[in-house]
Amino acid sequence: MVKKPAPDATRRSEKSRRAIYAAALALVGEVGYPRTTVEGIAARAGVGKQTIYRWWASKADVLLEAFLDLGEQAAQAAGQDTDAVPDTGDLAADLKAVLRATVDELLDPRFETPARALAAEGLVNDQLGREYVARLLEPQLQLYVARLRSARDVGQVRADVDPRIALELFVSPLAQRWLQRTGPITHAYTDTLVEYALHGIAPR
Amino acid sequence: MVKKPAPDATRRSEKSRRAIYAAALALVGEVGYPRTTVEGIAARAGVGKQTIYRWWASKADVLLEAFLDLGEQAAQAAGQDTDAVPDTGDLAADLKAVLRATVDELLDPRFETPARALAAEGLVNDQLGREYVARLLEPQLQLYVARLRSARDVGQVRADVDPRIALELFVSPLAQRWLQRTGPITHAYTDTLVEYALHGIAPR
Repeated sequence: MVKKPAPDATRRSEKSRRAIYAAALALVGEVGYPRTTVEGIAARAGVGKQTIYRWWASKADVLLEAFLDLGEQAAQAAGQDTDAVPDTGDLAADLKAVLRATVDELLDPRFETPARALAAEGLVNDQLGREYVARLLEPQLQLYVARLRSARDVGQVRADVDPRIALELFVSPLAQRWLQRTGPITHAYTDTLVEYALHGIAPR
Repeated sequence: MVKKPAPDATRRSEKSRRAIYAAALALVGEVGYPRTTVEGIAARAGVGKQTIYRWWASKADVLLEAFLDLGEQAAQAAGQDTDAVPDTGDLAADLKAVLRATVDELLDPRFETPARALAAEGLVNDQLGREYVARLLEPQLQLYVARLRSARDVGQVRADVDPRIALELFVSPLAQRWLQRTGPITHAYTDTLVEYALHGIAPR
């Protein structure tokens, strides 16, 4: 049975939840994932440890939800839908718009440091890595799958193309440049990736 | 002035060098980069700490060279040149051959664990990340740049294509799947990436 909270309690909870997200993101950026603790997050957020354990099972849970929330807020601030890649009928323009917004988010310092710390831990911590992919990364990639499928339905993508692989031609280069700092990330760069992926690098 | 070592000394040095590389790779895979020390590498390799400092300035130096050596050995074992992507005149076949060999290396357990530990540290340790890219990653990417340039010269790649960006269409998806475990890596997968990158996903 779920007890419906009074409006004041909901407001208080929402405020605590925001403070906990902010504390978790700040802490993981500062000391890295292994040294981030639920105790540390609670102290920084000014709440009791039990408040955190009432809502989340582990520090991984807190962090993953904090990132989901950060992504939703960034998308809302950019006036974008978080549930779908736009479909204006122009595939290239739609992909470029979403990738440009992603570039902006990746370059945002509020996102940069904690995201890097979480991604780094995901590389060597198998369980966290799988949760990170299943809960954060793959759901975002599936939005591209849906958009490429609808493009395939109207003949803008070849019928024999696997959308789950095709999206990697423009998403993964951006991810690698950001993660491993192998090159600058700009709107011109992601626009170019979309053009190359759609039309290929061989002569037509 | 460099003193030429006697043959016996060279053999002894070579043996120590191999032992140090093996110890460094094993240790970073087991305890991660931050807890790997020059002392630990020396103890495991059965050499004095000063032997390591005679040849390398830091643990980062030892590890980066150990990886360079591992890559060269893997390429030699696969009967491949480490200095160039082959040029048989068939761009697709050449790219597929190199990427298939890369898949085999990424799935080799001797490579997997230490490479993951070093890549993870490179994400959060700015200096190591930049050395990792400059000394290990970018030189490999430049081999693709050279191959794409020669393909451009003979009209197999469009004149307006930037080879440094184009290579990311097939290299980065493989890197991301391997680093973040976002999907299986197989020869069929990298073959598909090459086809999509060359010919695009839109109808011709």
